[in-house]
Amino acid sequence: EEFDGPCIKTDIPGPKSQELLRELTALTTAHEVQFFCNYEESKGNYLVDVDGNIFLDIYMQISSLPLGYNHPALLKVLNDPANLSTLVNRPALGNLPPADFPQRVQNSLMAVAPKGLTNVKTMACGSCSNENAYKAIFMWYMTKQRGGAPPSPEELETCMFNKSPGAPDLTLMSFTGAFHGRTLGCLATTHSKAIHKLDIPSMDWPIAPFPQLKYPLEEHEAENRAEERRCLDQVHALFREYNSRGRPVCGVVVEPVQAEGGDNHASPQFFRELRAIAREYDAAFLVDEVQTGVGVTGSWWAHDLWGLDDPPDVVTFAKKMLGGGYFHTEEFRATSGYRIFNTWLGEPSKLALCEAVVKTVQEENLLENVRQAGAVLLDGLKHLQTKYPTQLENARGLGTFIAIDCVGGEAQRNKIVADLKRKGIQSGGCGERTIRCRPALIFQPHHAEMVLNAVDEVLAEQA
Amino acid sequence: EEFDGPCIKTDIPGPKSQELLRELTALTTAHEVQFFCNYEESKGNYLVDVDGNIFLDIYMQISSLPLGYNHPALLKVLNDPANLSTLVNRPALGNLPPADFPQRVQNSLMAVAPKGLTNVKTMACGSCSNENAYKAIFMWYMTKQRGGAPPSPEELETCMFNKSPGAPDLTLMSFTGAFHGRTLGCLATTHSKAIHKLDIPSMDWPIAPFPQLKYPLEEHEAENRAEERRCLDQVHALFREYNSRGRPVCGVVVEPVQAEGGDNHASPQFFRELRAIAREYDAAFLVDEVQTGVGVTGSWWAHDLWGLDDPPDVVTFAKKMLGGGYFHTEEFRATSGYRIFNTWLGEPSKLALCEAVVKTVQEENLLENVRQAGAVLLDGLKHLQTKYPTQLENARGLGTFIAIDCVGGEAQRNKIVADLKRKGIQSGGCGERTIRCRPALIFQPHHAEMVLNAVDEVLAEQA
Ligand code: FES
Repeated sequence: EEFDGPCIKTDIPGPKSQELLRELTALTTAHEVQFFCNYEESKGNYLVDVDGNIFLDIYMQISSLPLGYNHPALLKVLNDPANLSTLVNRPALGNLPPADFPQRVQNSLMAVAPKGLTNVKTMACGSCSNENAYKAIFMWYMTKQRGGAPPSPEELETCMFNKSPGAPDLTLMSFTGAFHGRTLGCLATTHSKAIHKLDIPSMDWPIAPFPQLKYPLEEHEAENRAEERRCLDQVHALFREYNSRGRPVCGVVVEPVQAEGGDNHASPQFFRELRAIAREYDAAFLVDEVQTGVGVTGSWWAHDLWGLDDPPDVVTFAKKMLGGGYFHTEEFRATSGYRIFNTWLGEPSKLALCEAVVKTVQEENLLENVRQAGAVLLDGLKHLQTKYPTQLENARGLGTFIAIDCVGGEAQRNKIVADLKRKGIQSGGCGERTIRCRPALIFQPHHAEMVLNAVDEVLAEQA
Repeated sequence: EEFDGPCIKTDIPGPKSQELLRELTALTTAHEVQFFCNYEESKGNYLVDVDGNIFLDIYMQISSLPLGYNHPALLKVLNDPANLSTLVNRPALGNLPPADFPQRVQNSLMAVAPKGLTNVKTMACGSCSNENAYKAIFMWYMTKQRGGAPPSPEELETCMFNKSPGAPDLTLMSFTGAFHGRTLGCLATTHSKAIHKLDIPSMDWPIAPFPQLKYPLEEHEAENRAEERRCLDQVHALFREYNSRGRPVCGVVVEPVQAEGGDNHASPQFFRELRAIAREYDAAFLVDEVQTGVGVTGSWWAHDLWGLDDPPDVVTFAKKMLGGGYFHTEEFRATSGYRIFNTWLGEPSKLALCEAVVKTVQEENLLENVRQAGAVLLDGLKHLQTKYPTQLENARGLGTFIAIDCVGGEAQRNKIVADLKRKGIQSGGCGERTIRCRPALIFQPHHAEMVLNAVDEVLAEQA
């Protein structure tokens, strides 16, 4: 049973959190700590902190908890003695998988495989999922180039020293405002905030503009279409430019909604055309569903909503899937051993949890719940932006993957997020001036009402 | 209680493993699968497969299991209901740590912090540990360059497009034969095998030769010293070359023993001099202890054996620590939030397991055990290479981190590893022609005797 509502008794962070923060700061940088949590006492949509404050959590650990706190279906997996041995004996999954691994992959990942993607590779987090997907794309590209011939002695020699032709000068196209992770390969395709990128050497890879649309989308169709066309023209231009400079663009990576970059949406038509352009230039089309996947848009994968005839080549996942990896078509299978590999390759216990998530979403009809709760939340935010037009604008979203912009910019956004916290609503920011909602799939219409009331109160106080 | 010894009943892989492999191959590439395991039945040093074969395991999941299979101390952690909530509610550790996080860090990671390294950052695997350590080094370097001034508007703008000066043309020095991981940043410093590198774009970073020493080290001191000097001269030359080309070398990364590259050793003096050279050029000195850490050399960290006056700046870990991260000095703390960050930043349950490992090693005096069992194994291998001089050479090692080369090259190595498997010894290869031993810390002298007998039998059959 959940709590009835949020309950805040102390400043945030409270005295116990402040004390723990002092302890932690002696051992490690902890600039980003908000407060310390009591995860045992947290339940469903409610996060409890060490000072006994209870938050209605619509951010859910940076969008990574699918079923909220201490969901019985997940507790059951961990209480099952049969799963204990996979937790305590984490295997080198590529070499020595447990007996139930094929069945687990089938019941968890393949049970929700995107249409047309018959293969999956397990990884541990969003970054290694994208890094390895990029590598799979580069390998696929060079395998095609060689037309079935083995690598030349020169390729085998030069690659050891990071030199062409063995380490060829290939590129991957990404978009302004994108976030695909922070390891060096991912970071070359991430363009969300300067602080994510500053001081880190990178690669000269093509960066196309992501459409800057006007919301609500349905009221600005013509201008939005023109903006999307401008961006797609740039995609064409970058393909031509890089390909002609001998720096082939092997793939395009895109998020269905730019999630860290400020919840930037584009139309299904934009994505269909982008997919077609990638096909036209023989480049792979990679959809990064690390944050948009697992039902939050009302469909299991956000790209399900695009109506693609020609599926993506690769789809990456992590966060709410509880482990990482990428789905891919037959063409993107590694041609020999140890090319896509690491020690752990994910973790079987995460698949056991993922399997329980997949089953629970189905049994409890949670996609329908997401659509209903999301509609209440989005309608309510649209109402509030009409009520407070000098403070809020651009309410937008799919399912419960919802965001709204603060007219007053970053400072106002940060103040609203902090004030919401003081009222017991745990939300998050993204982009420069956006508040994002990333509740669990068990977030219901009555929770949405509580959020809306709190936002109304905060804005009334600020007005 | 362990088994009395290995017991092989079927071909390897056995019929059940073969059936499961067919199932798995329909869903994912599985070139690297050796066989499927029954982790519930595995115990201590013994790995049981799905066909009921029992292996004495001296490879331990690519050197990643510290206490063997189903160690009671680790089972106890997972059976403790207090730990259940951290497993089922994996937090965004940087934002919302659990109440016991500071204490956990203290009891696990900081309890074994390398001398002089007062800070730690948690990560999830060896690759993100190294990637983030590299980033910390680049940030440290640029922070020094700016002399305390904030980044310029031009830096903030250009970094968003992967361009200098915001994404500056900095470099990191690594060694031939090194392995530091497979994500793109790590891979730029990895030079182990062509198959790890082929077709992946990389960066022009300095690569110094790693000494190719003659074994046993004590019998070739003069030539080895000359070889090490040659390599250190190259390190100097590369610093001068890259620095003068405006591509500053911000750090040097090195493994205490090149573990994937073929168990290549160097002398403590080599490492002391390398550390001094890094200091001379104001570059960071990063020791990658992902494979060499956690007692396998008879010391907790392999670099403890170097007698450094001036400690490393950064030390990375993963594998047998059960989670990843890096230790660092005060200077390498991130200057502001969200510069070194990701969603999960490791996992608290891994720290709980790590804490149990640290305690068990202490309570059971396992470092002494490693030294004893390692001495038996290394002496025995030296005896065997005298007995079979046309087949084996270069037995070498520290603690149980032991390797031996096969005179007949890669094919012979692979045959010996396969034959050992048929006799119930699970070992592994590294480099071109090396067999490596990576047993758990509970591997005892009587296990070493069993390994030696099996090697003797295999070689006698091949002779
Ligand atoms: S890079 Fe994904 S877990 Fe380390």
